[in-house]
Parts: sequence; structure tokens; C-alpha cells
Amino acid sequence: MRRLAYLGPPGTFSEEAALRYDATAQHLPFASEAAVAAAVESGNADEGVLAIENSLEGSVTRTLDVLIHESKLAIRGELILPIELCLIVRPGMTAGDVRAVYSHPQPLNQCRRFIERQFPNARQEASLSTAAAVEEMLRVEGGAAIGPARAAELHDAHILTRGVQDSPHNETRFVVVGQADDAPSGRDKTSIAFTIAHDQSGTLVGVLHEFSDRDINLTKIESRPSREELGVYIFLVDLEGHRAEPIVAEALAAVKANANFFRMLGSYPRSGDARDP
Amino acid sequence: MRRLAYLGPPGTFSEEAALRYDATAQHLPFASEAAVAAAVESGNADEGVLAIENSLEGSVTRTLDVLIHESKLAIRGELILPIELCLIVRPGMTAGDVRAVYSHPQPLNQCRRFIERQFPNARQEASLSTAAAVEEMLRVEGGAAIGPARAAELHDAHILTRGVQDSPHNETRFVVVGQADDAPSGRDKTSIAFTIAHDQSGTLVGVLHEFSDRDINLTKIESRPSREELGVYIFLVDLEGHRAEPIVAEALAAVKANANFFRMLGSYPRSGDARDP
Repeated sequence: MRRLAYLGPPGTFSEEAALRYDATAQHLPFASEAAVAAAVESGNADEGVLAIENSLEGSVTRTLDVLIHESKLAIRGELILPIELCLIVRPGMTAGDVRAVYSHPQPLNQCRRFIERQFPNARQEASLSTAAAVEEMLRVEGGAAIGPARAAELHDAHILTRGVQDSPHNETRFVVVGQADDAPSGRDKTSIAFTIAHDQSGTLVGVLHEFSDRDINLTKIESRPSREELGVYIFLVDLEGHRAEPIVAEALAAVKANANFFRMLGSYPRSGDARDP
Repeated sequence: MRRLAYLGPPGTFSEEAALRYDATAQHLPFASEAAVAAAVESGNADEGVLAIENSLEGSVTRTLDVLIHESKLAIRGELILPIELCLIVRPGMTAGDVRAVYSHPQPLNQCRRFIERQFPNARQEASLSTAAAVEEMLRVEGGAAIGPARAAELHDAHILTRGVQDSPHNETRFVVVGQADDAPSGRDKTSIAFTIAHDQSGTLVGVLHEFSDRDINLTKIESRPSREELGVYIFLVDLEGHRAEPIVAEALAAVKANANFFRMLGSYPRSGDARDP
């Protein structure tokens, strides 16, 4: 049975992603993204599932840092999970009973308009995770929580309303990491990270030319400050194709030759979501 | 007196940035980034200070969304604030008395190794802001908070240890927004946002050529998913120079002509930090 590490506790969206990726695996919760990666590296888990990007909040920088700096793991898959936040209460409670709303500050923020409209007089209480929010509200008279349906299910709590987030466009992209990436499927994506020196837009153009000259499409380009040195940016690029395809391999070799730092994050089948029509 | 809006409550790093930008202004706390922008747009404040990027956490997407989608305000300045997290306690308390550590989950996460090393048996408690954490811990026996020095000062609390964040490279870039951007200073930066269609790396290369062909340096390039349509990315580019300089104006006109969506965020003097040597 596949042992699949994820960012716990059970009842988070990460667990939901792990279940969706492989419902029959043994699911192992870990306390941080770094601990998930360490479990896979040490062989205590076969694969790990990590959130990498949310449509509202942007990149999950802790995952990027682990992938770029702190592990040698490869990305071997991806999946996109719609983020549906629910209003969760004790069985038997109604909306009129709600006096306090518990959640992690990020989902509280994503449901700000809903909470203000429905519960203008309720206290907002911060929790360390959406799963912890459900546990905490169950102990409090008039408590409610904002969290995933899975957290309600695990704690025998009741879902009063589904989809309470203010923006309908809320989804998270997860990557599956392992010791090696995946074989070509004919419909793949490759992720790389590299640095070029500060203030050299010419260099970045040169790098991007390696792809456009070969008709290789980019599905993502992002820069983020290097942790080591101010003024040095790390570029993260996702491109269509597998690194084993000759044309892709040629482009990647050219990019690598011009980069100060280059890391192949892996090639893997593209998720079949709307983002990749 | 200048009326300066910021993301409250008092005692947050945003207030520290507002104080550093103009200590003699009237400082007005607001509950969200959108409310800061609305205050400036309506004339209830002259300028607003908004966090836009943190070296560890990445872009502040709520600020980007406000600037790109929800306001017509211009960026007219920037400043970089070193983020120094402090361990804050009641006066008279020592490290041995600490039983619970309060903070927003993000700073708790940024001090994870410090807390595990120093207080392996302490409870971690989530708060809605670092300022709220200080208020909450003062009411609890054995409570401590992680937050900015300013929060300790405001609540007559005691700073036990400064700089308790795990990574020394922790700084936040703030932008100053107003009705109009700033006049050329000779050492300026310009921020723009634009969209190009999905899967057209050639188009992005073409856009970047407009800058590299004119020797205009980029200090930042970032993509983020558009909220309106999957597969469409918004690019955020910071470049050296003022939009009133003929060579910059020419490049910007060319970019605009090729973009589906183009927003001039403003030209403003570059911050004198190490990121711009």
C-alpha cells in the first residue's frame, strides 16, 4: 500500500487532496511542509502531497522553499482542488445560535463578507488550522467554524452552509513529490527553478527565448526573492512538455548553461482541469 | 497635517511602516487593505501605506488585488521594513514562566524553530493579529506573544528577546498609495500590471523585449492567476525609470499596445535599500 505524507492534521484541505489523489493509500499527517518532504526523503513515506499555489492567496512559499532549497525530491504529479469552505456547527444548532466563528485567519479573511452579513455580532476567533477550529468551536456555547467538509465529517459536526467563501474562484494546486519524477505520458508539464543576476532583463529575455524559439509554451512564470542575497531573484517556470522530449531537453540545457543556479523540479502528467484546456 | 491610512490595529508592522514613512502624520488604522484604499479614494485620507511583498511569504495578494482590480489609486512611494519579531511578556515575567505563546499563525510559523527550542512544552495559540496576540497574552497566566516591538510599547508589555524569527532575511516592502504618483526624482521605479493570453510564451518574450531592447532593467516580474478566467495570468513588472522619461514612455506604450489589459500602477522614487544598490 502506498504511504502518502501530507500536511496535517486530518480534516484539512491537504488531507482532502491526498484522499483525492489516492483514496486507498495509507495517509500520514505531518506537522510542516518540511516534515512531509523529510518523510519522503527518508523513505518513511513513498510520496507526499504539498499545496503549491492558491488562486486567491498566490504561491505557498513554504512549499517552494522546501522544493527549491531543502530537498532533492522531484514533482511527479499535480492536482487542482476546488476550495469549498463550509460553515460548521454542532448537530442541532441553527444559524441563529451562532455567537462566535472560529477558523484560521486566512479562511476567516476569505469569508469576511459572508460573516459580516450573516453574523454581524459574532466574535471572530483565530485557530491554528481549520481542523483545530472545528475542535475548538465544539467546546464553546454558540461556536461555529469555517472549514472543509472533511473536518466536519471527522468530528461528527454539522455543515450548516457550503461554499461560504466570498470569491467563487478559489482553488488550490497541489503537487505530488517523490524520489523521482514520472515517465512521459504524452501530455506533460515540467517545472524548473533558476536564478539570473539582478537588473538584467536581457538575461531573462534570453532565457525565455530558449522556449519561445522552440514553440514551448509556458504555463507559469513567477519570481521570488532569493533567501540568500538581496537583489537576486529565483524564477519558477512551468512549461508544457516532458524533459525527456528532445526539444524540451535542448531548451532546458540552454537555460541551465546561462543560469547561476538551476534546479529541475520534475516532469509529470498535466492535471486535466480547466487551466489546461 | 498629512492623514495616512494603514492596516490596523495599532501595533502591527503596517503601523511601524506608516510611522517610518511619516512620523508626524495623522495615522488612521483601517480593518482591511480594501478599506485603506477606499479611505484614500474618498478623500478621508491623503495617502495609504500597504504591505505588498515579504521576503519569506511572497506577495501580499490582497494588496495586489486592490491595486489591480479594486481601485484607481497610484503607487507614489515605497519603503522596505526589516521584520523583527520579538518575544513579548508581562513586565516581571521571565522565560521560565512562559506556558503559552500567542501570535498570528504566520509569525508563529516564522518562529517555529525558536519556539520549539526555547519552549518545547508551551501551548501555541492563534490570534487574529500580532497586536491582538499581545492583548490576549496579557490576560493569561504564563502567556507570551510574538510580535513587533511597537505592540509591546503600546501595551506597556516587556520585550524579553528581539529578533526571534528563524530566518534573518525577513523584510517587507510597503507601497505608499495616493490619488496620483510622484514626479521624476532621477532615481525612480515604475510598476505596471498587464495580461497576455494563456500559453503564449512568445507574447511574454515580445513584451520583455520592449524593455531589454531599450536597456530598461526590470527589478521584479511576477505572474498570478487572474481572478476572472482560468488560464489567464496577470503579470506584475517593476522597472527602473520614470514613466515621464521618453524611453520608458515608448516602451510602456508598446507593451500597452500588445496587452489585453494594462494598468499603470505608478512611478515613484526607488527605496534606498540594499535591494537597489
